Amino acid sequence: MEFSSKLLENAVDEMSQLPGIGKRTALRLVMHLLKQPLDKTARLSSALLTLKEEIKFCSNCHNISDQEICEICSNPKRDPGTVCVVEDIRDVMAIENTGQYRGLYHVLGGKISPVEGIGPQDLTIASLIAKAKEGKIKEMIFALSSTMEGDTTNFYIYKQLEGIDIKTSTIARGIAVGDELEYADEVTLGRSILNRIPFEGSLKLS
Amino acid sequence: MEFSSKLLENAVDEMSQLPGIGKRTALRLVMHLLKQPLDKTARLSSALLTLKEEIKFCSNCHNISDQEICEICSNPKRDPGTVCVVEDIRDVMAIENTGQYRGLYHVLGGKISPVEGIGPQDLTIASLIAKAKEGKIKEMIFALSSTMEGDTTNFYIYKQLEGIDIKTSTIARGIAVGDELEYADEVTLGRSILNRIPFEGSLKLS
Repeated sequence: MEFSSKLLENAVDEMSQLPGIGKRTALRLVMHLLKQPLDKTARLSSALLTLKEEIKFCSNCHNISDQEICEICSNPKRDPGTVCVVEDIRDVMAIENTGQYRGLYHVLGGKISPVEGIGPQDLTIASLIAKAKEGKIKEMIFALSSTMEGDTTNFYIYKQLEGIDIKTSTIARGIAVGDELEYADEVTLGRSILNRIPFEGSLKLS
Repeated sequence: MEFSSKLLENAVDEMSQLPGIGKRTALRLVMHLLKQPLDKTARLSSALLTLKEEIKFCSNCHNISDQEICEICSNPKRDPGTVCVVEDIRDVMAIENTGQYRGLYHVLGGKISPVEGIGPQDLTIASLIAKAKEGKIKEMIFALSSTMEGDTTNFYIYKQLEGIDIKTSTIARGIAVGDELEYADEVTLGRSILNRIPFEGSLKLS
């Protein structure tokens, strides 16, 4: 792509560093900003920089937060004895959206992945284990994605919990509500049969 | 979408103002920036702001340029008597990429569109007509998209040129090179038959 302006080329280059944004899309986005008033670009530019500079993470659960302790951890109505272990804050948002969970979270910041060079020390596993050792946690729910990395991370944490009196569980895998059985993959369908629940129990779920 | 941080929400909101970027994509992009070193965000942020603040347009053709006169207009090897009228700078880049055009451009900055409230005075039509009146232009090539707005704009400019000795042309419409006839739309196929060219002439094209 040949640019008539270095400034334009530079902006497009930086924009296309973002995941899933190619050069053409980046050019379209930059051209859009050029057609808008200056304050639109100024607001976007400062929102990104301010976030990156002033971002804080909850010292208890490592969720992104504007305070020292996030709103979920500081909410007295939530059960501090139940901790749901997730990969990143998008998972927190997804679970919060269901309105079905009243415990706290622990955001790992990723999964153990030797291929990507991510080890246990790069995640917030140590602080999770510390909380468990203090006896603050009664049940730990593993809610990582069920990939090899997710399973490895679950198992690593599980081994670290040895000797601590704690209940561990993992979220249910199965056919999505409303999905047709014939289109489900075999692993999911297999798990949903193995992990079947009593029919009376299922009637209580809305 | 519920955010645990105002700063995060603000960044996602600003990002999702961009065309084709929804809230989910915006969140993914912002999360990506959060995982990168600060200088990545700083560079993106400043590239956008610098572009918007320091952007210049060529005083002759209105293409984006870092100088008063853009590289195309100031290139002595290009033919100043031929001017290709385009909607925006992406069209300039697309035509330049073909390597087939040695004339200059004139960037209108849009198309006449009563629906969007864009009239002739919002575009750079006056300066185009002025150049034509000075006798600088021998041939004007209309290369706007063939929509109602494009056709309206072409026709408006054409009427303004009345009484000026100038040749006007429009880029050829037809079946794309390599495309199958059976998948072409009727209007395009119809035009490509009406505007057929002598077979001997077509042999000279690479």
